[in-house]
Order: sequence, then structure tokens, then C-alpha cells
Amino acid sequence: MAAARARWDTRAKPPGALGRLEALAVHLAGITAQSPPPVPIAPAVVVFAGDHGVVADGASAWPSEVTTAMVATMAAGAAAVCTFAEVVGATFRVVDVGVAGDLDGTAGIEHTKVRPGTASIARGPAMTVDEALAALAVGRDAAQRCLDGGADLLVAGDMGIGNTTPSACLIAAICGVAATKVVGPGAGLPEDRLPVKVALVEAALRRAAHVTDPVELLAEVGGLELAAIAGFYEHATASAVPVVVDGVIALASLLVADRLRPGTAARCIAGHRSAEPGASVALAHLETAPLLDLDLRLGEGTGAVLAIPLVQAAARALRDMAGLPV
Amino acid sequence: MAAARARWDTRAKPPGALGRLEALAVHLAGITAQSPPPVPIAPAVVVFAGDHGVVADGASAWPSEVTTAMVATMAAGAAAVCTFAEVVGATFRVVDVGVAGDLDGTAGIEHTKVRPGTASIARGPAMTVDEALAALAVGRDAAQRCLDGGADLLVAGDMGIGNTTPSACLIAAICGVAATKVVGPGAGLPEDRLPVKVALVEAALRRAAHVTDPVELLAEVGGLELAAIAGFYEHATASAVPVVVDGVIALASLLVADRLRPGTAARCIAGHRSAEPGASVALAHLETAPLLDLDLRLGEGTGAVLAIPLVQAAARALRDMAGLPV
Repeated sequence: MAAARARWDTRAKPPGALGRLEALAVHLAGITAQSPPPVPIAPAVVVFAGDHGVVADGASAWPSEVTTAMVATMAAGAAAVCTFAEVVGATFRVVDVGVAGDLDGTAGIEHTKVRPGTASIARGPAMTVDEALAALAVGRDAAQRCLDGGADLLVAGDMGIGNTTPSACLIAAICGVAATKVVGPGAGLPEDRLPVKVALVEAALRRAAHVTDPVELLAEVGGLELAAIAGFYEHATASAVPVVVDGVIALASLLVADRLRPGTAARCIAGHRSAEPGASVALAHLETAPLLDLDLRLGEGTGAVLAIPLVQAAARALRDMAGLPV
Repeated sequence: MAAARARWDTRAKPPGALGRLEALAVHLAGITAQSPPPVPIAPAVVVFAGDHGVVADGASAWPSEVTTAMVATMAAGAAAVCTFAEVVGATFRVVDVGVAGDLDGTAGIEHTKVRPGTASIARGPAMTVDEALAALAVGRDAAQRCLDGGADLLVAGDMGIGNTTPSACLIAAICGVAATKVVGPGAGLPEDRLPVKVALVEAALRRAAHVTDPVELLAEVGGLELAAIAGFYEHATASAVPVVVDGVIALASLLVADRLRPGTAARCIAGHRSAEPGASVALAHLETAPLLDLDLRLGEGTGAVLAIPLVQAAARALRDMAGLPV
């Protein structure tokens, strides 16, 4: 990182004139242990999909069936994140780690379902510890397959109706804030139903009050795609590959991954600031400022994918810019 | 624009979940008069270079010779903006509209010098009205050549040691604010020399106090590359092609272009918020919020180029996303 800083200071520009991109390239040098850091040319996006029993208790404006439909839309390349991946030249894959609906007959999906949706976290544990471990392994394996395929920059996305509720639980539990600070409308819950969502999160948090182990926390109040994303981050960062993190679901998963392997979060790049309030709580806890702030609240990895060209530009400028005339 | 809004509301996502990208695609529909707007696939970046007599009066930390050196660096593809253009797949050209140094023997530059640098705006007019008109024509012609070459999204950049000083003058004059509100360190003027720069801007503004005609304003307190960029914007927007605007120099030029042809600014996309204070004054005057805020203060079109993938993503999502199941 010191070498990258020194290299910036001798490029053909006023000192510091590339602002946050200079810090970003220094971060990349730290992540990859190279200066100048390699320019990522093969980004890979993996969306993990799962369902949430808490939807039946009123956590979302949408029914769980929408998860199944959206995963099929992703498999067809017609979700928002697919169109963004095409713009930035990223490969795209979608993994069923816990969708309630039956997707066995749908092509273009990786079928690694751990269980068909979680149980309602307002009433009891989301899943067993063994299931949480299995979902973590799905994420780790997916990251490794990206690396085996030559990917040099990774993004995880989420699809799961209701998943802002377990995300709010994980963020509140790990950051030590009240449910009201992390609960937002998610995919469009009307304002008059927000108190219901807050009550569901509070019920889950009461049960999880004694839990400190990150795997137990996932099992108690998490979700299958959240666990997979945590495993994905843990494995990717341990492999010294840059990871760009998405919004509130991704950040909740990152907080868990950072508990599993301290230092994971410091090795990730925050892609954007989601409009969901829990995202800002998590970003503040991690003391990181994201690259983009475009009022997105879609998930799927969309905000992280949009930040990929910034990462490439930072690395490319540090590598390819002329030096100052001596 | 109404058709684009209606199309967003039937895409497979919660209403409004793509935040500012939804407004961006609606803006593109307005600019191009098509819904969904075409996805830009052939962006073109043109940097206009010129020098400034006011540098001899202490406006900059750098001598004018740096402009000549940086234009040669751009011709060699080794400036920051060149590396960014490669990341986003944009063509790149650099135009000498008023560099003081002799670049005739340098390949890879468009040689359309109107005069070798301006006179010091602290002492008298930057150039004649005829020279301002000639520089405007250089910009218009450059935009037309991009369009003739098939470009479907345009960015103008600037290179010119000292050009934050005429930019500050144009922004102060058009927005009606004091010199102290628009003067910043530019390419690294030490804080103890800022009062000198403020005094230079104030001297220029006193002379220009009676000037309302935009071409006369360019001649009195502007710059050759600023005039060219204004002409570039005027011509590109009149051609219904999306334009992404860079930082403080570009915004000063856009204010002039909007005086020349009212409505020009409304047809442009603000790419980023430069760290230079005049940029925020101009953005507020234009009532527009830029897409990126990365603390850049380099110019060259760098911030605008970084925003190109966001424009492509907004257009692509609106065109290619699945509709909601009926």
C-alpha cells in the first residue's frame, strides 16, 4: 500500500487530484499485495437466492413466490443485475441456496438448495446450525468456482423476498443498535406496516440476545442466501481477490463474515449506499464510505456491479498513467 | 419521458428501486426523444487544450509549459482520462485550440489552434470576440466529427494550466456570486496564495461587470478551451445526443453554452461533483445533482468518463429488463 501511495505521488497529475480513486487503488494494492495492483478484467457476479418464513408473518409487501419468479427471470438474463453485468462485462450466475419454490426444472440456475426457505425468525430459529454451515459452504464453493474460471473481481448479490428483515436483525445484533434504526421499507412495505416489521425484528432479536457465535447467529435470525454470501466473502477475501459489496443484505452478510474471519470487511470495497437504513448503520460500523450513492434499494448486487468500472479505472490509472517529468 | 416513466413502473422490480438511475433513463428519453432511449455503445471523449495568460500573474502552482507536456502525454494515451476512456470503451481525441507551446510536430493531436494562449484576464480581455467565435466553432466542429464517426454519447474534457481562474470568473459572473465563493486551489495552489487568485478573479469580474452577451463574456474573462467546450455542448445537445458533463471547467463552459442556446444545460447529464468550489455553485445554479461524488479535481473529463457506465446501465435496464408478470 505504501508503494501504491508513492506511485500515485509520481503520476502526471496534481497530488491527490484523483480523490477517492487514489485511496481505492491503494486499497486494491493492500487486498492483492501488489503495487501497482492488477487491473481486474474478468469480474464475476453471483446472485444467491433464498426465501424467508417471516414473510408469512407480514415482513414484506410481496409473497415468497416472487423469489421463484425473479430467479427464473435472472436465469433468463432479464433482471436488472443481468443488464448491469452486461454493461460492465461481468459473468453472471444465480444460485438457489434456499428458494421455497421448486426450480429443479429451470435451466441456468445452480441447484444447491440447502432447504426450501427458512422458518419464521419471529417464532424460532431460521434454520439449524448444520444448515447455516451448509449454506456458508455453498457460498465458499461458488466463490472458488469463480476463481477457477479465472475471475479476478467478485460481486455477490441477493434475491429473496423478505430478506431485509433477517438483514436488519443481523445488523442490529452485530452493531448493537435498536430495530427501529435498521428497519426500512425494503422492497416497498407501506409505511403503516413498518411497525409490524419492527416488531418481527424485535421478537427475533430477543431470542438472539445471548448469541455471539456468527454461525449460531445466522441459524437463529439469518437467512440461507445471507449465509451463502458470508461464505462467499470469507473465501474470496482469503484468496486476495477484490470483492465489491452491495447494499443492505450484502452488508449484513459481510458483518457476519467479518465475525467468522476478522479482517474480511477491511479487505472488501463498499460499492454503494443503499437507501435502506440498515445499510448506513452497517457502513458506519465498518467505518467505510461506499463509492456510489444513487438511492438504489433493489439488491441483486446491482449497486456493487455499477461500481466495478470505478475499481478498474483506479487500478488502470495507477498502472498506466505516465510519471511526472523528472 | 412519460413513456419511459411508465415503462419503469412495469419492470420486474419494486417501484423506484433503481433510484437515480430511473430518473437518468427518463432524462435520456427526453434528450433523445425515444422510449426506451437507445443504449449508448459508442462513447467519445474529446479534450480541448488551451493556455491562460493569467498564469504569469500567479493564478496557478504550475507553469503553462505543463499544458504542452500534458497534451503530449494525452496524445501518447498516458493521461488519467485516457486510461479511464479505455476502461469504458470510449474513443479519445485531444484538440489544441489554444496551447501556448508549439505542438505542431506532435502526432495524435488535432491542430486547430485559434491563438497561443489567452492574454491575462486580470489585465484585459482574454481574446477578441472573433477569437471566441473561432474557438466556439472548433468545439462545434469537433462534436460534429464525433457524430460523423458514429459516436452516441459525448464527453468534453479540458487541459489548461490556470483554467480554474477563468472558470471561476464565468461561474461568478453567470451565477451572480462573489469570487470568494468560486475560487479554490485548482491543481494545487497553496492556501496562502488563494488570496492572489481571488484578487485576479475580482479584477477580471470588475471589467466584465457590464457584459451579458455570452460570447463577449468568453472574450473578456474566458478561455479558448472553455469556449470550445461550450460550442461542443451547444452542438451535441442540439443533435439530441446525450452529453455527460465533467467538473468545474466543463460546468463553466456549460453555463456559457446555456446562455448561447437556452435549454442546453437541461439536456446534459452532470457526471460528477468536482472538489473545486465553483463546481458546486454551478451545479446548484443549474439545479442538478451529479451522478458521482468521488472528490476528483483533475479535469480532463475524468469524472464524466467514469459516469458513462451509469448512463449505459440506466438505458440498458429500461430497455432489457423483463416486465412484471401480469
